[in-house]
Amino acid sequence: MFALSALGAFAALPPAPPAAAQTAPAPAAPAPIEADWHDIPDSEILVITLSGGRQVFVRLAPRYAPGHVANIRRLAAEGWWDGTAIYRAQDNYVAQWGDPTDAKPLPPLVIENPPAEYEWPQYDGVAGMSRPDPYAPRTGFSADGWPLGTDGKASWLTHCYGMVGVARDNPPSTGSGAALYAVIGHAPRHLDRNIALVGRVIQGIDLLSTLPRGREALGLYSTAAEQTPILSVRLASQLPEDERPRFQYRATDNPRFAAFIAARENRAEAFFVRPAGGADICNVDPGVRRLR
Amino acid sequence: MFALSALGAFAALPPAPPAAAQTAPAPAAPAPIEADWHDIPDSEILVITLSGGRQVFVRLAPRYAPGHVANIRRLAAEGWWDGTAIYRAQDNYVAQWGDPTDAKPLPPLVIENPPAEYEWPQYDGVAGMSRPDPYAPRTGFSADGWPLGTDGKASWLTHCYGMVGVARDNPPSTGSGAALYAVIGHAPRHLDRNIALVGRVIQGIDLLSTLPRGREALGLYSTAAEQTPILSVRLASQLPEDERPRFQYRATDNPRFAAFIAARENRAEAFFVRPAGGADICNVDPGVRRLR
Repeated sequence: MFALSALGAFAALPPAPPAAAQTAPAPAAPAPIEADWHDIPDSEILVITLSGGRQVFVRLAPRYAPGHVANIRRLAAEGWWDGTAIYRAQDNYVAQWGDPTDAKPLPPLVIENPPAEYEWPQYDGVAGMSRPDPYAPRTGFSADGWPLGTDGKASWLTHCYGMVGVARDNPPSTGSGAALYAVIGHAPRHLDRNIALVGRVIQGIDLLSTLPRGREALGLYSTAAEQTPILSVRLASQLPEDERPRFQYRATDNPRFAAFIAARENRAEAFFVRPAGGADICNVDPGVRRLR
Repeated sequence: MFALSALGAFAALPPAPPAAAQTAPAPAAPAPIEADWHDIPDSEILVITLSGGRQVFVRLAPRYAPGHVANIRRLAAEGWWDGTAIYRAQDNYVAQWGDPTDAKPLPPLVIENPPAEYEWPQYDGVAGMSRPDPYAPRTGFSADGWPLGTDGKASWLTHCYGMVGVARDNPPSTGSGAALYAVIGHAPRHLDRNIALVGRVIQGIDLLSTLPRGREALGLYSTAAEQTPILSVRLASQLPEDERPRFQYRATDNPRFAAFIAARENRAEAFFVRPAGGADICNVDPGVRRLR
């Protein structure tokens, strides 16, 4: 098989320097240790059940978008998304879900346009990428694994693959959170600081990325029959205790993760003849693990 | 509908500055004029016909990878791919096709491992991005629309969405071109300068990006039944004249394209509250058009 080999994030590969390396090869990154894994609270996990019982799991980011996440929790608590649909799939861009008719009233206590939560007045990144990218002078990860851009003052979540954001109309709309999208293509980083990002798909992204693409403008489906029905959306904390999925995030504030970034920036696997010396934050995913 | 609006590349949108713009808004980019469109030669178009008659079209890049493209032309001329399959689909990464058994002999005149064509000893870019990215000090487009990275001396094709590369084993293998992959996720730019890129999907990428993902390591399918049969692969020049698709690329060596880059870097559409001031080359696609 002519495989593109050596692509596993934590593969224990020989640390031998590639033949024509232009940069010093990094040592193979050590695997995370048990203490690096931390529970994601049940109140920060959204369980989206699609037709056929297939499930997508989203980790919420209440620290960065408290107003929008409060709305999303309320919408889940009310079962508001039950019977809605995925009504948009645009190739190399986003899949989007909510009420396709845009007519369903929001439940009480859901604020139609919360204050914009596009950036955060500090930077709490602990593990940084070596080089700037076109969208941020500096990028890095919060200790609990969120990808961030910063200009040295404010910081913001970055639109990496699988990130979930709040669809909105033109300003001053900020979106309620009733319509959400997930990134299913190359990171649309031009949306950073322009939209409230509220979480990331942690399992089931392939259910969204493989959806047939909509043929209308923006990837909207032409007919309701093409949409994917959403049976229910619940917080894990709403589910009976023995039915709750249990996920853990990987902490980034440790030397194992720093070595992982270095290994992604300077690929030492035998496959590579020329490590890049840098990497896009969206090509570095701390990952999660599911315990049950 | 809570659409993410204002996403069309050439949409004629009001040039009014967004409310909180931090950078001077660029004028709306003028549309390309007729003289900007140029025929892609029939000998540079690969027509891949999948089961059901669905077709994927690849534009070849003989200038950057002459040896590998010579192999690919020979393989197409011999009908070598007929009866092979797409045997790998890895989420957020690549779809790969060729002979799943890795047993089919190569035709005469196909060189098993041509010299590495991972970079080119000059840079012919004419339209550049404003900011560096983590993988290249400078990026830009050749006059005929190829995305390039450069260090000021050599240049190389960049692994943007839809780019097609030659799968290979560990060095010194460079791959023959019999196994090819297309990028279906976030640009795996760490592969730049490590693999021969030979073209880009110009129509039908959604046929690859929506494939069910393989469940084995690297996205390989577990069973042959999951693979997608390839009925035929031909150069357009092999087809009867009246069956040849006709595609044109957009030239980039003109002020319209320079304005397009500027407009992508500084989004002036009403949707945006904060243009980025820069953009990833993989978020700027010159595009092609199909005439028949």
